[in-house]
Amino acid sequence: MNENENGNEEAVFEFGVVITKRSMQENDESSDCTNVLIKEFKKVGFVVEKVIGIADDFIKLAAPLDTLGRAAAELQIMKRTHIGMDLQFEMEEVEAFVKQPDGSVFSWCERFHCYCHLIYGIANNSKSAKTLKFDGKEIFWEIGENLIQKLESENIVKQVFPLHDEKTRKKLLRTWALRWWDCTNQPIDDIYPYYGAKIAIYFAFLGMYTRWLFVLAAFGLTLQLVDFRSMKLVVLPVFFVVVILWAVMFCQFWKRKNAALLARWPLSSTVEAHSGYKIPGRKDSSLQSPMELIKVLEADRVKGKQVFQRYEWLGRFMRFRNDAIIIFSIICLQLPFELAYAHLYGVISSDVMKFGLTAVYLFSIQYITKIGGQVSVTLIKNENNENTEKRADSLVYKVFGLYFMQTYIGIFYHALLHRNFSTLRKILIQRLLLSEVLENLVENSLPYLKYSYKKYSVRHKKREKGESTDKFQFSSRVEKEYLKPTYSASIGEELEDGLFDDFLELALQFGMILMFACAFPPAFAFAALNNIMEIRTDALKLLVIFKRPVPRAAGTVGAWLNIFQFLTLMSICTNCALLAWLYDEEGKWKVEPGLKAILIMEHVLLLFKFGFPRLVPSEPAWVRANRAKHTTQAQNLCSKKLLRTISGGEKRGIKMKTG
Amino acid sequence: MNENENGNEEAVFEFGVVITKRSMQENDESSDCTNVLIKEFKKVGFVVEKVIGIADDFIKLAAPLDTLGRAAAELQIMKRTHIGMDLQFEMEEVEAFVKQPDGSVFSWCERFHCYCHLIYGIANNSKSAKTLKFDGKEIFWEIGENLIQKLESENIVKQVFPLHDEKTRKKLLRTWALRWWDCTNQPIDDIYPYYGAKIAIYFAFLGMYTRWLFVLAAFGLTLQLVDFRSMKLVVLPVFFVVVILWAVMFCQFWKRKNAALLARWPLSSTVEAHSGYKIPGRKDSSLQSPMELIKVLEADRVKGKQVFQRYEWLGRFMRFRNDAIIIFSIICLQLPFELAYAHLYGVISSDVMKFGLTAVYLFSIQYITKIGGQVSVTLIKNENNENTEKRADSLVYKVFGLYFMQTYIGIFYHALLHRNFSTLRKILIQRLLLSEVLENLVENSLPYLKYSYKKYSVRHKKREKGESTDKFQFSSRVEKEYLKPTYSASIGEELEDGLFDDFLELALQFGMILMFACAFPPAFAFAALNNIMEIRTDALKLLVIFKRPVPRAAGTVGAWLNIFQFLTLMSICTNCALLAWLYDEEGKWKVEPGLKAILIMEHVLLLFKFGFPRLVPSEPAWVRANRAKHTTQAQNLCSKKLLRTISGGEKRGIKMKTG
Repeated sequence: MNENENGNEEAVFEFGVVITKRSMQENDESSDCTNVLIKEFKKVGFVVEKVIGIADDFIKLAAPLDTLGRAAAELQIMKRTHIGMDLQFEMEEVEAFVKQPDGSVFSWCERFHCYCHLIYGIANNSKSAKTLKFDGKEIFWEIGENLIQKLESENIVKQVFPLHDEKTRKKLLRTWALRWWDCTNQPIDDIYPYYGAKIAIYFAFLGMYTRWLFVLAAFGLTLQLVDFRSMKLVVLPVFFVVVILWAVMFCQFWKRKNAALLARWPLSSTVEAHSGYKIPGRKDSSLQSPMELIKVLEADRVKGKQVFQRYEWLGRFMRFRNDAIIIFSIICLQLPFELAYAHLYGVISSDVMKFGLTAVYLFSIQYITKIGGQVSVTLIKNENNENTEKRADSLVYKVFGLYFMQTYIGIFYHALLHRNFSTLRKILIQRLLLSEVLENLVENSLPYLKYSYKKYSVRHKKREKGESTDKFQFSSRVEKEYLKPTYSASIGEELEDGLFDDFLELALQFGMILMFACAFPPAFAFAALNNIMEIRTDALKLLVIFKRPVPRAAGTVGAWLNIFQFLTLMSICTNCALLAWLYDEEGKWKVEPGLKAILIMEHVLLLFKFGFPRLVPSEPAWVRANRAKHTTQAQNLCSKKLLRTISGGEKRGIKMKTG
Repeated sequence: MNENENGNEEAVFEFGVVITKRSMQENDESSDCTNVLIKEFKKVGFVVEKVIGIADDFIKLAAPLDTLGRAAAELQIMKRTHIGMDLQFEMEEVEAFVKQPDGSVFSWCERFHCYCHLIYGIANNSKSAKTLKFDGKEIFWEIGENLIQKLESENIVKQVFPLHDEKTRKKLLRTWALRWWDCTNQPIDDIYPYYGAKIAIYFAFLGMYTRWLFVLAAFGLTLQLVDFRSMKLVVLPVFFVVVILWAVMFCQFWKRKNAALLARWPLSSTVEAHSGYKIPGRKDSSLQSPMELIKVLEADRVKGKQVFQRYEWLGRFMRFRNDAIIIFSIICLQLPFELAYAHLYGVISSDVMKFGLTAVYLFSIQYITKIGGQVSVTLIKNENNENTEKRADSLVYKVFGLYFMQTYIGIFYHALLHRNFSTLRKILIQRLLLSEVLENLVENSLPYLKYSYKKYSVRHKKREKGESTDKFQFSSRVEKEYLKPTYSASIGEELEDGLFDDFLELALQFGMILMFACAFPPAFAFAALNNIMEIRTDALKLLVIFKRPVPRAAGTVGAWLNIFQFLTLMSICTNCALLAWLYDEEGKWKVEPGLKAILIMEHVLLLFKFGFPRLVPSEPAWVRANRAKHTTQAQNLCSKKLLRTISGGEKRGIKMKTG
């Protein structure tokens, strides 16, 4: 599909540089800023195309395999080799590395890093400062100065962003986003090369989750439609047990599926650890690098151990402190607020007042979550998490706490207050329908509206300048893409991208249907239906509405799986409480016999929850065997050579080379 | 310490071969069986010493480094190299491999395997069958036939067993077993080279467990001695919470300590996986080797995956079936028996009858556990566990179920029947004192009695033959050692060694004091006291009473840690139940407020139990950093060479060699 890496094929432009439109042309071609930029790009090895847009000018960049290979070697990218070991990339030994499923050498994530390295690596290597001219202004490009950063600070280069590959995008649109009749089937192996592992994993997760939901949807609907009469009180616990077993097994089998997917894609474990989600040009703000500590460890074993232990426990304490701050502020600030709303909503009788209250509430929680997100991001900056993915996970936990409180506390309040299934059911239906519809509406329409507004404003600007309106087709795709919004999280762009919102929606839905499963069994059918739509709308969103997202190397769901498992745990407790209420008609709360049975059931389910992962390992046997095979191969292949190198040291190694 | 590997030093004899005493001497020296054996041993490279004993003759074997190195290369032993990677051992590149803490190249476990390989590898390589003469009998040693196996079948070679190293043994006796005043301190780093990782880990575990117990012992004694009056009902739940926190933290911190210990000892992970506990000359009875399956996987990916999945699930089903059989038979056969005993014991009033009943009971459970162990061993043979350590773990789980029922069901019965703390306390004291004293007595005296009897019978035999009785000192140490019992499990020698009994004792004690912590807090002091003694008696047992045990490569506690964790989980539930009884004075079992508080406490503790391992990882940061450093070193050292080998394939590799 992606044939840009073969020099002979048509170049696929994967990066765009936006340059401010100038009002006057330079006379001197050689010192013209844009020309210099294009010349430098060509010098680096890019295939360059200049596009004159309506509001801005654009330079499209494509990198042939040679250029990428050079960048990868400079970046010391670790890549999976055929013997299963990760080694530093070298251009001459390209055959030793495992190819991507689509036949290319580099994955999109690796290409992205190479592009960034090349684009932001252009510096003035000549012996004198150069003078660049732009729109009459003169810019001095000093020796050793970074060109793009200079131009960005001068506001000449407006943005550097990854471009969609039109051919692949259209194909994906056809085979993925518009295939409504495929239900939960998706071409995951085509999504991975185009969007990177993290997004592909999200869609695989969503697909599997929806597929598994069908079982419970059928069971839940049966419970709703068939009248069990006297059996009603027996059927509900059975449903509860089935739901919990389902959730536990789902989490474990997802881990297995994830392992199988990663075995198919040659993801290097080292890339995953080091180069997570990094926006180009932004500086990393980690406190203290563990690499320095490793040096200490090397120098003095005992002292190094102590330093390491201090470092480890300090990091743990910081994380603990931050978590404590978040939990404390959620309980002390958010909880009263939510309870006040829930209470007022219950007390007020007038519908108009209720509507007004809800409007005020909805308006204020927008700000609360935003502030919470900001606080979390600030706190996380002081943690020394090992890599960006870990940091993102830490953020996810903190922010999810906020949303958890926001979403469920009202329901808990009503459930506790009324102790009445029909009221609870009404609230659940309200929430499910409202939230799903509202979320989808906001999620899909807001970016489109933003895009439309930008488009309109560009046209408007042109019209004001008195140019003819009939050539107002956006001639270039790159300009259209530039106007599209970026795929970013609603709580702040710093550490997470748009996947945060998508996963959040899934997790909140999962919690809602699971924690109150006994109160409203048909919720599973709602959720399944919603998720089938979600798959295609999310695909459309990514392919049509947004800029191509920055790829992330992580190959797992990350913190979200833990959240799913935590929600499963919670739902064991909440459902038991619900059942206890249901059977406790007189309000006497006697142990015998109902409560006893429920307590035993709870303990058995908890045992299952924690025992099941021991029975079924999270990695299929064939994946493990595959890895073992690779290791043995590596060892057999080069055991002797390695040994000679280790024991003989440098001298003999050099002798071998020259001899 | 162990200097046998340096050819110039005095040879340390580490293996003994026992040969039946003959009544007549051969005339022909060259075809004499013992002489041929000694000649063959010398040919292999052993340092040989012949010892004439009273009842048998002995050949002591010592292997210089060269001999061991050759055997290791033949066995393709994987050893840790200086770059942290495990590679096949080669004698020429011995400098590349990490030395043991005591300066020797091979660990005791590796030496053991080499010895076995060498001793059982002697075959007739000449072109004709040889005739050996022994005690007038003629034995034909066919071409290619294994000498030792042949002689074993002819009952000429009675046993091949590892010998104690007198010098090290005496040193350990001085610095370890007889140092009563050291309390829980032990020279673990000296135990590891002499006994191997598994036994060293047992003593490290026992030491840490005892050290940690001191905290609870002090708390428990305070609770017993100080009269809290009205606060009594508050102090007990506090004690319970502290105990559970203690247990959870102990398990996690043990994992960290274990990781730290393994980082200190150069244990190769591959040795650990492949060559577990294997008695020489015994055949492995595994069903189907996964190595064949790997070949299928290589040939056809999709089909191979299916085959692997079938293999994996079949194995899981077999294990599940076996576990189900064991659990079913425990519940259906053992439970009624135990309950009957407990009930009868409660009903009978006469003390004499009680005593008689207990005697019958103790006699019969001996058989029951033996039968249970045999059944478990038989069942496990049909499981396709990956290696012998996994199989041993599977056995441990099954047999522990048996002992769990046996030990605790009586206590549960009494607790449920009487619902009375003082009765429960009385039973606990009885059990604790009795079991500890009894166990220790049996454990330590039985092997000694066996040894004495054997010694006596040897002397008796001699005396019958009319030889003079005044030279009846056992002149040779090797004969004395031969008469010592082997370090084997009481349930059967097939899969486990004596560590099984030691760990079992610890686990049962842990369960007893933890599960009924609220009923009898001073139990912790009893346990601590007992364990301090246990450390030294176990050390003495190993050093004085038993033959040197067969070393096991596994570097963890294995299944026992899971059992400890399971007991912690159980104890959360049982203690909650105990507290509920305690507070439920009227027998009404109302939810408000006592039961509610207890239930909340239980859930919080369960959350802590499962959350804590997420907070504190089971591997210290410095161990992980150390490993990461090694990996980076390996990759930097040989990245280029490796790449050339992989991409160039075989041809270029050969060229490099010849050029």
